[in-house]
Amino acid sequence: MGVIRLGYVHIRVTDIEEAKRHYTQTVGFRLVKDDGKTVYLKGWDEWDHHSVVLEEGGVGVIKLGYKVNRAEDIEDIERKSQTFGVTTERMSKGENTDTSDGLRIILPTSHVVEVYHDMTLLGSDVGAINPDVFPRDLIGIGAPRIDHALLGGDNIATTEKFFTEVFDFYQVERLVPDLDHMDTPLASWLAGGNRGHDVALIQGDGYDGKLHHFAFHLQDWNDILHAGQIMAMDDVPIELGPSQHGITRGRTIYYFDPAGNRNEVFADGYVAQRDRPTTIWTADKLAKGIDYVTRNLSETFATALT
Amino acid sequence: MGVIRLGYVHIRVTDIEEAKRHYTQTVGFRLVKDDGKTVYLKGWDEWDHHSVVLEEGGVGVIKLGYKVNRAEDIEDIERKSQTFGVTTERMSKGENTDTSDGLRIILPTSHVVEVYHDMTLLGSDVGAINPDVFPRDLIGIGAPRIDHALLGGDNIATTEKFFTEVFDFYQVERLVPDLDHMDTPLASWLAGGNRGHDVALIQGDGYDGKLHHFAFHLQDWNDILHAGQIMAMDDVPIELGPSQHGITRGRTIYYFDPAGNRNEVFADGYVAQRDRPTTIWTADKLAKGIDYVTRNLSETFATALT
Amino acid sequence: MGVIRLGYVHIRVTDIEEAKRHYTQTVGFRLVKDDGKTVYLKGWDEWDHHSVVLEEGGVGVIKLGYKVNRAEDIEDIERKSQTFGVTTERMSKGENTDTSDGLRIILPTSHVVEVYHDMTLLGSDVGAINPDVFPRDLIGIGAPRIDHALLGGDNIATTEKFFTEVFDFYQVERLVPDLDHMDTPLASWLAGGNRGHDVALIQGDGYDGKLHHFAFHLQDWNDILHAGQIMAMDDVPIELGPSQHGITRGRTIYYFDPAGNRNEVFADGYVAQRDRPTTIWTADKLAKGIDYVTRNLSETFATALT
Amino acid sequence: MGVIRLGYVHIRVTDIEEAKRHYTQTVGFRLVKDDGKTVYLKGWDEWDHHSVVLEEGGVGVIKLGYKVNRAEDIEDIERKSQTFGVTTERMSKGENTDTSDGLRIILPTSHVVEVYHDMTLLGSDVGAINPDVFPRDLIGIGAPRIDHALLGGDNIATTEKFFTEVFDFYQVERLVPDLDHMDTPLASWLAGGNRGHDVALIQGDGYDGKLHHFAFHLQDWNDILHAGQIMAMDDVPIELGPSQHGITRGRTIYYFDPAGNRNEVFADGYVAQRDRPTTIWTADKLAKGIDYVTRNLSETFATALT
Repeated sequence: MGVIRLGYVHIRVTDIEEAKRHYTQTVGFRLVKDDGKTVYLKGWDEWDHHSVVLEEGGVGVIKLGYKVNRAEDIEDIERKSQTFGVTTERMSKGENTDTSDGLRIILPTSHVVEVYHDMTLLGSDVGAINPDVFPRDLIGIGAPRIDHALLGGDNIATTEKFFTEVFDFYQVERLVPDLDHMDTPLASWLAGGNRGHDVALIQGDGYDGKLHHFAFHLQDWNDILHAGQIMAMDDVPIELGPSQHGITRGRTIYYFDPAGNRNEVFADGYVAQRDRPTTIWTADKLAKGIDYVTRNLSETFATALT
Repeated sequence: MGVIRLGYVHIRVTDIEEAKRHYTQTVGFRLVKDDGKTVYLKGWDEWDHHSVVLEEGGVGVIKLGYKVNRAEDIEDIERKSQTFGVTTERMSKGENTDTSDGLRIILPTSHVVEVYHDMTLLGSDVGAINPDVFPRDLIGIGAPRIDHALLGGDNIATTEKFFTEVFDFYQVERLVPDLDHMDTPLASWLAGGNRGHDVALIQGDGYDGKLHHFAFHLQDWNDILHAGQIMAMDDVPIELGPSQHGITRGRTIYYFDPAGNRNEVFADGYVAQRDRPTTIWTADKLAKGIDYVTRNLSETFATALT
Repeated sequence: MGVIRLGYVHIRVTDIEEAKRHYTQTVGFRLVKDDGKTVYLKGWDEWDHHSVVLEEGGVGVIKLGYKVNRAEDIEDIERKSQTFGVTTERMSKGENTDTSDGLRIILPTSHVVEVYHDMTLLGSDVGAINPDVFPRDLIGIGAPRIDHALLGGDNIATTEKFFTEVFDFYQVERLVPDLDHMDTPLASWLAGGNRGHDVALIQGDGYDGKLHHFAFHLQDWNDILHAGQIMAMDDVPIELGPSQHGITRGRTIYYFDPAGNRNEVFADGYVAQRDRPTTIWTADKLAKGIDYVTRNLSETFATALT
Repeated sequence: MGVIRLGYVHIRVTDIEEAKRHYTQTVGFRLVKDDGKTVYLKGWDEWDHHSVVLEEGGVGVIKLGYKVNRAEDIEDIERKSQTFGVTTERMSKGENTDTSDGLRIILPTSHVVEVYHDMTLLGSDVGAINPDVFPRDLIGIGAPRIDHALLGGDNIATTEKFFTEVFDFYQVERLVPDLDHMDTPLASWLAGGNRGHDVALIQGDGYDGKLHHFAFHLQDWNDILHAGQIMAMDDVPIELGPSQHGITRGRTIYYFDPAGNRNEVFADGYVAQRDRPTTIWTADKLAKGIDYVTRNLSETFATALT
């Protein structure tokens, strides 16, 4: 079945203690491993060892991990990657803590993506036998899991193609200049399963290798407000929302972690499906696509990538 | 028991047809009476003849109506008004369509407030016998009723005193410059019953006689999003929200009607009570008081009064 | 202004430790005072010293306290009570801990109601200066305050009259046998302010002196589900809901405390007003009035009073 | 990628006019085709020609359709089906209106399942170019799409195996007698993608060929209440809910269509994933699994299959 999902996001933060406080006390992720300079965290509803890695030293994304279903999928992706023409290298078990061997790929947008088939299983906080619907001891926002990442690129068309051809993702939504220029993606939302987007891409000068944001999943619109209330209590800067995207219909707040990495809490997008006609957004409607309710875009939105 | 509530808001609109379309199709109020230049509307969960009056010719508030419990309350308020020292005049039954006799008062901030004890009873859209919880044929936002109005004033202290002394309102919340200047209101939220505020006041140069906004009540945070979605579909300009106020804790969107009058959809503030300690906001926390979640205030917020 | 609200509910519980655990860990009320056999609690959004009193020894209601606005209101209610013809006695400051002097009234349904004008002010958990919208350390359901009580009676008509004539409450809703017998209340919902009901009455043989339930206020439908999830985790028996009442439109769960006292979490009823036409329910529609969604009533609903 | 999703449910109804009224006016599905005895409907957020087929004559399920990604998948499933040992027959384009050729399979539980790769594309009601988040003219519940079906069986183990081996579904949750009898499924929830369950199975004597329910997807807990309110207005009998399942965490109401087919409105289950450890429910916790909040099961729940 190939790529299951975005498995981890490994980012830089300027101050590891401050970041740890933010991701545990505000976001509510669990600290799984802490070796001083690098910290591993997971959400309460995730079962693998970690999904967020924080590494001290600056801001921005170091790499993303995508989990595949079986060890054989690694070879398949390696072969397809080489045919496609991206740089790859094998990675060994343990290069990433508690993570199997796999493949490291340099995307045309120069992001590093790692593909792996296994990670130490910790189980979710509610367990797998007659589980409660959430754990009693949630902290802050209490985010259950990560959701997706939006990567920048100077020219995203090739990377878009990489995800459809090598990862077998399909095009869920796409931003184009206008209906006469449907082949030029300005932004692209791609999924392997039904979760709206497993990756998204946005085009802009100097965007190569940069992260627009990565997102935490929340259940619904009510959780979005709750997240916003916690952000207010913890002085977290908000860029957009609470609102709803036209694109994906997700309910959203964009905000920044203490290092300046943009994050999102994301809830309630529709269920994407492989045979659903791709939704097209034209550039003149971008504000509605991003912030359906207010139809306003802040100046920082398309410029502040890290 | 004196003043029950804000009963009607009578405003100016630049184009009566456009306004009618907005208040019926977007807000979802019912058209009760239309004499060409003036239009009377009510919400589905209101029983009196009308609560919103639109009159062609400009923008801004013409007058507000406050309903009292009994005819005797009119005399009582007249007497107290004269003691207080505001200009009043008696008004006759029928001066306002379907409305009893009453008293017209010029506030120190020069707004016209009418007090009346009776209005033609139309009943709510669900009736009073084994009613359904809402009518099946809601349109647009489907707002059930009006909620409150925020009036501007060059110097609101005397008008604040008018509402507590003559209308027997109590101070629910108050904005002051800082904790050393508690006696200088910059803004004030006042109630007679438990509904957060029956009137609010905001101070600013040139604000006399002006309206900051009047509000429609909605049930909850979910209805706020639904209202925002309808506003997006109908190209209604949004100034703030969806968000939550720190002040009153209400969930909110501020937006403008086609004439430029600011309106609000307001839900879920706490239950105000006469013995609740007045909540004090200091000017440095105003942004959090108005938009608790984002802590941002648009430039227009404290300037665009009509 | 007379009676402000239901101020406290003083009930019996079979096991004080078990009850303390339930009301603090499940309901999320704060323990204010504990003298071994009697426990005083308050909600995070209440400012007076206590609103729930638990006393070991059985099950059922000992008394209710209603707070009035001013000391003079006590005399006024005493006079009206004597005219009405109910038994009263003066109570001294301190007879109830941290509570002013007042008046003790025996209702025609034989319930004890105390009227008081002051209680030690503790303040809410968010304070009154630039407050957050909720405290960060909520436990369990995190109920902010009590809401109302429903009292039983063999013949409620006189007690209904007591509340309208002596407490100056008005009739918000009323259950009657059918439209030909509008003067015979089977149940009655009465309010002084805008909060749906400050007291309700239900008629039945052997109901005198008994409590049907008292309620905790929650914000909205989402909080009702959250309360239900916590009840599930804590093995709290649920009798009805999550659902919505037709009567008052409140969202609701009825459940039992460990002693067997019926409680309710109640959210989002409409804003009651003194001039709103009384809503009439006929007995054949009672199921819809109580559980609008399912239109089912459990057998215990009208029988299990304590 | 094999099976995409449950594409259509074809059921019997006793009265076609009554059923049409129910599925269009209460559920809010769109009537796509009506040939007198058979009616085809789709949800506003579905793009294929139909997802619900109603045929006059009794009650119960006639067949289910599962859509596959490509024509080649049909052959693949045919081959695997034959290896597995179930009866299959080829079906031609047009045997089902607006539906491609495909394969008809008789499950071990004797249900008829059709697999197809294409259907006339009508598009969703919001279109695919700069779409609004919902259409303005929703009716009743306004359900966007179908979700899943729960099939009965005298012995479901083989059918469970069919779905994992032939359809490549994975086990999301499973009900077993107890932890010592993990290999005996009493009920089973299976998915191909991330949508909680694409099919579920429940075991019971005489269940072969029967339908427990099929479900409509709703967005969230608030939509569940709204659906319940509409059901109340339209006298739709409710069996369970509004509540939340422990199993799948979905928010739910079970109700009956006018013919007696059980339906569900289902919202907000977690995002299922192929590598998520299967959740196990033991029979003693079934009530919590089905109705997490109340932990009550009606007698009809496990008996009323059609």
